[in-house]
Amino acid sequence: MKSRILWLFFALVFATSTISAQAADPLPSWNDTASKRAIIAFVEKVTTPGSPDYVPPAERIATFDNDGTLWSEQPVYFQLFFAIDRVKALAEAHPEWKTRQPFQAVLEGDMKALAKSGKKDLVELIMATHAGMTTDEFADIVNDWIKTAKHPALNRPYTSLVFQPMLELLTYLREKFFKTYIVSGGGIGFMRPWTEAVYGIPPEQVVGSSLITTFEMRDGKPVIVREPKMNFIDDKEGKPVAINLHIGRRPIFVFGNSDGDLQMLQWTTLAGEGKRFAGIVHHTDAGREFAYDRDSHIGRLDQALDEADKNGWTVVDMQKDWKRIYPGK
Amino acid sequence: MKSRILWLFFALVFATSTISAQAADPLPSWNDTASKRAIIAFVEKVTTPGSPDYVPPAERIATFDNDGTLWSEQPVYFQLFFAIDRVKALAEAHPEWKTRQPFQAVLEGDMKALAKSGKKDLVELIMATHAGMTTDEFADIVNDWIKTAKHPALNRPYTSLVFQPMLELLTYLREKFFKTYIVSGGGIGFMRPWTEAVYGIPPEQVVGSSLITTFEMRDGKPVIVREPKMNFIDDKEGKPVAINLHIGRRPIFVFGNSDGDLQMLQWTTLAGEGKRFAGIVHHTDAGREFAYDRDSHIGRLDQALDEADKNGWTVVDMQKDWKRIYPGK
Repeated sequence: MKSRILWLFFALVFATSTISAQAADPLPSWNDTASKRAIIAFVEKVTTPGSPDYVPPAERIATFDNDGTLWSEQPVYFQLFFAIDRVKALAEAHPEWKTRQPFQAVLEGDMKALAKSGKKDLVELIMATHAGMTTDEFADIVNDWIKTAKHPALNRPYTSLVFQPMLELLTYLREKFFKTYIVSGGGIGFMRPWTEAVYGIPPEQVVGSSLITTFEMRDGKPVIVREPKMNFIDDKEGKPVAINLHIGRRPIFVFGNSDGDLQMLQWTTLAGEGKRFAGIVHHTDAGREFAYDRDSHIGRLDQALDEADKNGWTVVDMQKDWKRIYPGK
Repeated sequence: MKSRILWLFFALVFATSTISAQAADPLPSWNDTASKRAIIAFVEKVTTPGSPDYVPPAERIATFDNDGTLWSEQPVYFQLFFAIDRVKALAEAHPEWKTRQPFQAVLEGDMKALAKSGKKDLVELIMATHAGMTTDEFADIVNDWIKTAKHPALNRPYTSLVFQPMLELLTYLREKFFKTYIVSGGGIGFMRPWTEAVYGIPPEQVVGSSLITTFEMRDGKPVIVREPKMNFIDDKEGKPVAINLHIGRRPIFVFGNSDGDLQMLQWTTLAGEGKRFAGIVHHTDAGREFAYDRDSHIGRLDQALDEADKNGWTVVDMQKDWKRIYPGK
């Protein structure tokens, strides 16, 4: 008798879990528009056993740009705010910065002068703040910053400026046994200390730009030192190259938001066989976030927007497709 | 009644699987010596919940050298045999090779002349055979070769020259939720086409030397082209640098066999906190495989052997520690 009750119990649990799995919306912060339907239709197609488009779990590689795709990127990439904060923190040890650009502009808060900085000035700012320490030391610096720093205009921690709909998408894909990667123009060493806690993406699934690093023994202890020299810029043509180097498989699912992601979108969808999904976050929401595309100096979306239509890429209209932008909002 | 029988059945299955799990030897091709005991003791320590040395699954990174650690490497690295076979296959299209070194030596089977080749000649051999095609084309070439080519002296497919004890170790670690990586001086594009089938290691967990690659659109299709220029040499100091770039975590378990692995062994065991394991495959078995160490031109093991004792690294004596060398033998 007891065992019969147990069987009934198991049958009930089974039925309930089946029902709740059907009822749960995996993307509750997405409005029920074409974008959401396209994502879910694709995921169902490639994950349902017996489907003609079925893809085995090992090959379910999904790559996401970071700036403007997983979190905001205005008025400048958040990594530049990090560099600015580091210049201020290091200024005492560098009296020469008071009269030398681009450091002077940073220290005087002269954003107009800073905005005029050329590429050479920006590189100098990056090298002065991102190199000359060990990888462990840099990770500690980034960790301290990400836990305490706030976006100057929005007055909120940077990690609260991630997109809730994209967090749900990452979770949804992982529940369907996708391996989710970041492939970003941002620094690989800048992202890795916090991507696992914020996005659920572990360090080995973060691909980004990098400095040259060197191995050294210091007092019998091995260290890796960050040198003031670029190793790789993970943007535009660099993105498929880095995907090939780090992952060695072509993604079947990709999301970006700017022309810097164009080649990654092309590499995912236009080469090889099988169903692919490509999405673009279109920043159309001046009220809740920012509105920019073809003329923006950060995250310009122009050529990729033209290509989207031609190639059947899903353009997510932030204003119409997303119920909320940030977690808790 | 029926359900009672079912319960009995499940209870039996449970009991049997528990017993067999306890009884099964995870490393049946290893003799019961100090090396095997050290491996198992370490794995138990870091994977038993509540152990003071417990490491969460996400941090269980294990890195393995390939040549000489997972498969043989004598009389020359197998990738050089691949290059030689490619020169022969391409010779008709390159009449100039008949009178030009190192190609002439390869075509005439003059191994003495080939052995005298300097680094410049070897690089030329690699570039002539490994570059100038897309990544997909190269993967097809490697796949064809690995399925058909045979080791000239041993007359066996190269994939049958992998070490059975190491295959068991890889499986054992993965069953304990380690993520197993290859970190090899060999070419990343040369290994990835077959490492999943042979070692159970997927492309994204293979780190190696690489050529510069470039992204191109050809007739509206994106391709990645292998250029005749080194991008990265994943040997010696390069190994910890590549581990940091590709994985972004320090391994807790590492295996190598030569001085080319020294810095990877140091990076794993001498930096940071927590229990670590480092092993060295010492080729001591002239009868069943090869015997070489301090004076070998391939896989020289000299400084790392001295360091092993000092640092408590486990030196595996192939002859004494391994019951069998190759699968089925």
